[in-house]
Amino acid sequence: MRMKVVFIGSGNVATHLALNLQSKGVIICQIYSRTAANAEALATKIGTSFTSDISKLERNADIYIYALKDNSFQEILHQIDLPHALHVHTAGSLPMNSFEGYAQKYGVFYPLQTFSINRQVDFAQIPICIEANSPETEKILLDLAHLLTQKTYIINSEQRIKLHLAAVFACNFTNYMYDIAAQLIDKEIFGFDILQALIVETADKVMTMTPRKAQTGPAVRFDKNIIEKHLSLLDKTPAFKSIYQELSENIYQTHIEK
Amino acid sequence: MRMKVVFIGSGNVATHLALNLQSKGVIICQIYSRTAANAEALATKIGTSFTSDISKLERNADIYIYALKDNSFQEILHQIDLPHALHVHTAGSLPMNSFEGYAQKYGVFYPLQTFSINRQVDFAQIPICIEANSPETEKILLDLAHLLTQKTYIINSEQRIKLHLAAVFACNFTNYMYDIAAQLIDKEIFGFDILQALIVETADKVMTMTPRKAQTGPAVRFDKNIIEKHLSLLDKTPAFKSIYQELSENIYQTHIEK
Repeated sequence: MRMKVVFIGSGNVATHLALNLQSKGVIICQIYSRTAANAEALATKIGTSFTSDISKLERNADIYIYALKDNSFQEILHQIDLPHALHVHTAGSLPMNSFEGYAQKYGVFYPLQTFSINRQVDFAQIPICIEANSPETEKILLDLAHLLTQKTYIINSEQRIKLHLAAVFACNFTNYMYDIAAQLIDKEIFGFDILQALIVETADKVMTMTPRKAQTGPAVRFDKNIIEKHLSLLDKTPAFKSIYQELSENIYQTHIEK
Repeated sequence: MRMKVVFIGSGNVATHLALNLQSKGVIICQIYSRTAANAEALATKIGTSFTSDISKLERNADIYIYALKDNSFQEILHQIDLPHALHVHTAGSLPMNSFEGYAQKYGVFYPLQTFSINRQVDFAQIPICIEANSPETEKILLDLAHLLTQKTYIINSEQRIKLHLAAVFACNFTNYMYDIAAQLIDKEIFGFDILQALIVETADKVMTMTPRKAQTGPAVRFDKNIIEKHLSLLDKTPAFKSIYQELSENIYQTHIEK
């Protein structure tokens, strides 16, 4: 399979997907971004051409992969007139039928991972969720996904958005807990690295136990003394105090109902 | 150093600490718990004696390590009359001077980790925070800690409680985010394992980046469309909806202020 792919978008998802597909023999023939410098940055990494002018979009690619913020997606899609190509987006919460009226062959190619620039990820570990508007398109997208990972799932838009929602808790909100912890540690004594073993073990535990069973801490023990002490330490950061209170109360309710 | 240690408590912390200290040549000469079956379970793992009768506590140990819930600690301490031994607790949020009036030599031996029964941990990676009421006791506790890890810190009670508070966010609340995610994924299609690569990568990222830089997701992009969709999916779970709203708002405020 020597697929020719155009990337619409040049952010974290586009970058990782483009580099990894290219390493599996896929031809990335163009990068489009509204910001020329961003398009150029990714095109340089790939060694391909780029444009920030939608009218100069390469017309002969097999697949157009949209890796954009959801609101940019709608705007850009309106301007594209390539009804015979295959169009796919990579978004967790955008329904597949967003393409309706703009394309005949379309689908979704959603890698369930958090991507940051300059950080390698192992695609073989990443689940890719596929949706397509025809069996032929589904086959093409599955073949493309299998270049990267064996962990493929065929799910519909409703199932995907629920998965994305779960991922926001498991990843984005988890990372925000790390951010709060980083703000709370006494920087005159410790670096954030003092929390590393704890963070890694917390993640590793749920590889083999349910999070329900893995729960530790003052809230699950209902250790009211500690909770009161912690809340008083948070008096000067009311936002964190409110989060502490809400999460502790929920943990307690979850475990007392057992 | 052939220290003789009695453990007061038989939960997760006592279990891991007792087993690991024993493996380094420390003699665990007795396990005390108010619940005889719990004391016996740990004593059997260690191959030592146990009691649930405080009057039968071994009187000739070098160190008495209290690994208890904070409220049990105060109750049990009142009943102990061994003023010449060294007494230490393992709690993050209990001040060292809780021992005042009950002992002459005392301190704190706080391992910064989440412990679950039946799950091995590598103590060499675990920071141990020490506090002592004299230089001699500090030296003894540091020597004991160095049997397990080179990551030792001498900190006071105020510094320790702040560290414990940060750990509640980095570990206990993070695990609760995993628990919510587990509840949100569609169990007819996926197991919790679909989130594993994401959870591991989220933790791994902050080994080399700050959580601030590692933040991804709809809130940091202020992708209002997605946030609204996710909130409407959470209508039937108002507790999760409230958490989603509060954390998204805080993430947004954190990153817009950059």
